[in-house]
Amino acid sequence: MIEDKNQQRTQLSDLGEFGLIDHLTKNFKIKHSTTIKGIGDDAAVLDFKKQIVVTTDLLVEGVHFDLSYMPLKHLGYKSVIVNLSDVYAMNAKATQVTISIAVSNRFPIEALEAIYAGIETAAKIYNIDVIGGDTTSSNTGLLISVTAIGEVEADQVVYRNGAKPNDLLVVSGDLGAAYMGLQVLEREKEVFKVNPNNQPDLEPYTYIVERQLKPEARKDIIKLLSELEVKPTAMIDISDGLSSEIMHLCKQSKVGCDLYENKIPLDPQVISTCEEFNIDSTTVALNGGEDYELLFTITQQDFPKIKANPNLSVIGFIKEEKEGLHLITRADTKIPLKAQGWKNFND
Amino acid sequence: MIEDKNQQRTQLSDLGEFGLIDHLTKNFKIKHSTTIKGIGDDAAVLDFKKQIVVTTDLLVEGVHFDLSYMPLKHLGYKSVIVNLSDVYAMNAKATQVTISIAVSNRFPIEALEAIYAGIETAAKIYNIDVIGGDTTSSNTGLLISVTAIGEVEADQVVYRNGAKPNDLLVVSGDLGAAYMGLQVLEREKEVFKVNPNNQPDLEPYTYIVERQLKPEARKDIIKLLSELEVKPTAMIDISDGLSSEIMHLCKQSKVGCDLYENKIPLDPQVISTCEEFNIDSTTVALNGGEDYELLFTITQQDFPKIKANPNLSVIGFIKEEKEGLHLITRADTKIPLKAQGWKNFND
Repeated sequence: MIEDKNQQRTQLSDLGEFGLIDHLTKNFKIKHSTTIKGIGDDAAVLDFKKQIVVTTDLLVEGVHFDLSYMPLKHLGYKSVIVNLSDVYAMNAKATQVTISIAVSNRFPIEALEAIYAGIETAAKIYNIDVIGGDTTSSNTGLLISVTAIGEVEADQVVYRNGAKPNDLLVVSGDLGAAYMGLQVLEREKEVFKVNPNNQPDLEPYTYIVERQLKPEARKDIIKLLSELEVKPTAMIDISDGLSSEIMHLCKQSKVGCDLYENKIPLDPQVISTCEEFNIDSTTVALNGGEDYELLFTITQQDFPKIKANPNLSVIGFIKEEKEGLHLITRADTKIPLKAQGWKNFND
Repeated sequence: MIEDKNQQRTQLSDLGEFGLIDHLTKNFKIKHSTTIKGIGDDAAVLDFKKQIVVTTDLLVEGVHFDLSYMPLKHLGYKSVIVNLSDVYAMNAKATQVTISIAVSNRFPIEALEAIYAGIETAAKIYNIDVIGGDTTSSNTGLLISVTAIGEVEADQVVYRNGAKPNDLLVVSGDLGAAYMGLQVLEREKEVFKVNPNNQPDLEPYTYIVERQLKPEARKDIIKLLSELEVKPTAMIDISDGLSSEIMHLCKQSKVGCDLYENKIPLDPQVISTCEEFNIDSTTVALNGGEDYELLFTITQQDFPKIKANPNLSVIGFIKEEKEGLHLITRADTKIPLKAQGWKNFND
C-alpha cells in the first residue's frame, strides 16, 4: 500500500517510443499457431480456422482504479483479465490481446515495466499472445485500453440472447467480494490520510481485497462446461453487478426471470464484512460489480450435469417475458429486480 | 474554429452507459459477411476464411489533438483513419473497428454524437463495420482508442521486413502537408487568443489544413497495386515522418537505402507555406508526420507497372545494409539519414 518514493526512476523520454515498446515487450513469447506475426509491424497478422470473438475495455485512473492502493503490476494484470472475462462469456478460448497505454510523464519507465509485468503474468497464466499495442503520453492520468481476441467453433458461440423460459439461471463462484474489498481499501485509504504511519491490518479481508485487486477470469468454467458437455443457452460476464447482468441477458433473450435471494452465493468474508460495514449483502451481490464471474442459463436437462459442482450455483429460473424480472426474497416476497446500473458518469 | 457555446447540451449521466452506447451506435449497419455479431454482446463474433490483421492506436487530447481547432466530427473520422492506414500498410482490406472513448463530464452527449458522426462517416466511406467498444468517463481529457481489423490472403500480406537490395523505394501522394497544416492552425490559435474577433483566413491553406484535420488512408493505393499486379516487397504507413519510417523498414529488412531529396513529392501549398514559415520543406517531409501515405519497396521488374502513375513516386533505392541510410541532396551530397523520431514524451 505504501510506495517507496526513492526507487530508481528512468524518464520515459530517455527511450523514445520504439525503444520503449521493444523494452517493455521483449519478454513476450508467441504461444499460439494462430499468431502469424505479433508486435513489430503496422499490424499483427492472425490466422484462424474458427470464428473469432473481439472485445475491448478501457480502464481509466480515478474512475476504474485508484493508484493509492492499486499496485501497478496488479493493474496490468486486471486490465487483461477484465477483457478475457468477456471472451470466456462468449464460450470462446482467449488467444490474443493488444494493449494501449496512455501515461503522463510523472510515471517513470519502472512504472510501465510494473504494468507490463502484470500483463505478462496474466498472458502466461491464461496462455495469451500479446500481439500489439500503443504507448503514448497523456497530460494527466493513466489509461489502459485492451482488446482481446478469442477463437470458438461456430456452433459453440454462446450469445446473451438464447435463454428460454424454464431454463435455469446459473452463476459461477461467489458474488460481492470485489465490491467489499474496495470498501475496505477505501476505508484504509482514509485512515492512511489521517495517520500515514498506521499500517493497515488487511488479514481478515484477504479474500475480498484480492478479489478487488487481482480478479481472475473464469477460463476454468469454460473448460468445465465443455468437459461436462453443457452448452449454455445464454451467457454474460458479471462486471457491473448481478442485477444489471440479469437484466441484459433477459432483455436480449426476451424472457423474464425469478432470482432467489437465498441461492445467491456469498463468501463468509463478504457476509462478515457486510455486517461490519452495516451493508445488506444481497444489495452488494446484486449491485457490487467487478466480480468477473459468469452468469449463464442452461436447459433443465443439463441440470444433473452441473448440480454437484461447487463452482456453480443455480440462482434462478427463466420465465416468460411478460412475467417480468423479480427477486424472491428470503421472506418469500416477490419484488421487482432493479439495477443501480452504471454510475461512472454520475460521480 | 469557433464553437457555439450555447448549443443544446444533454448530460452524459442522463442516458447511462448502455443507453448511451445504444444511442450512439444505432445507425451503424453491418456491411461484411465476416461480421457475425457486432455491438451488443460481451464480444463481437467474426468469421474469416483468410488471415486477419489487427492494429490499435490511441489518440489523446493535448498530445495528438487540440480541441480548440479540431472539430469533434473530424476527430472521430481521424481516429478511424489512422488505424485503417495501418491495415492497408499490411496490404490488407480493412473490415471492422472497435471504438473506445474516455470522456469527461464537461462534454455533453452532443459532443460524443459529433465524434460518432465522424466515425460513422469514415465507416461508410471505407466500408467498415463498427463491431464494439467502450464508452467511459475520464477525470480530465478526451481519449479515443481504436482497434482495426482487416483480412488478407495469406500470400498477399506485406510486412516491413521484405525489402531487398536493388528494390525501389516508392511513396504514395505527397508529404509534409499535415505538419504544415498544423503549423498554420497553431498560428491561428495564437492570433485568436490575442484577438478573439479575428476570423482566420485559411483559404490559401485549404489543402494542408485538410490534410491535418481530415486525413485519408490510402485504400485506393492497395486497390491500385492489386490491379497493377504489384505486390510490394515491404510496406509501412507514414505516420511519424518519412525518415523514421524508412529507418523502420530498412532496419527490419536489414538493408540500407539512398533517398533522393529531389524526388520527395511535395504539394505546391507545402512549398509556399514552408517559405512563409521559413522552414525547410525537406525537413518537413522527412520529420513532419501524420501524412498517412504508404511507403513501400518494389522489385525493379515492377517499375514499368507503376512509373506512369501520378499517385506514386519513386524516391529511393534499396542498398546493402552495410552501406547505411543516406539522403542524396539536391546539391548531390550524401548525408546520413536521421529521424527526429517521436517526441511526445519530451513535450
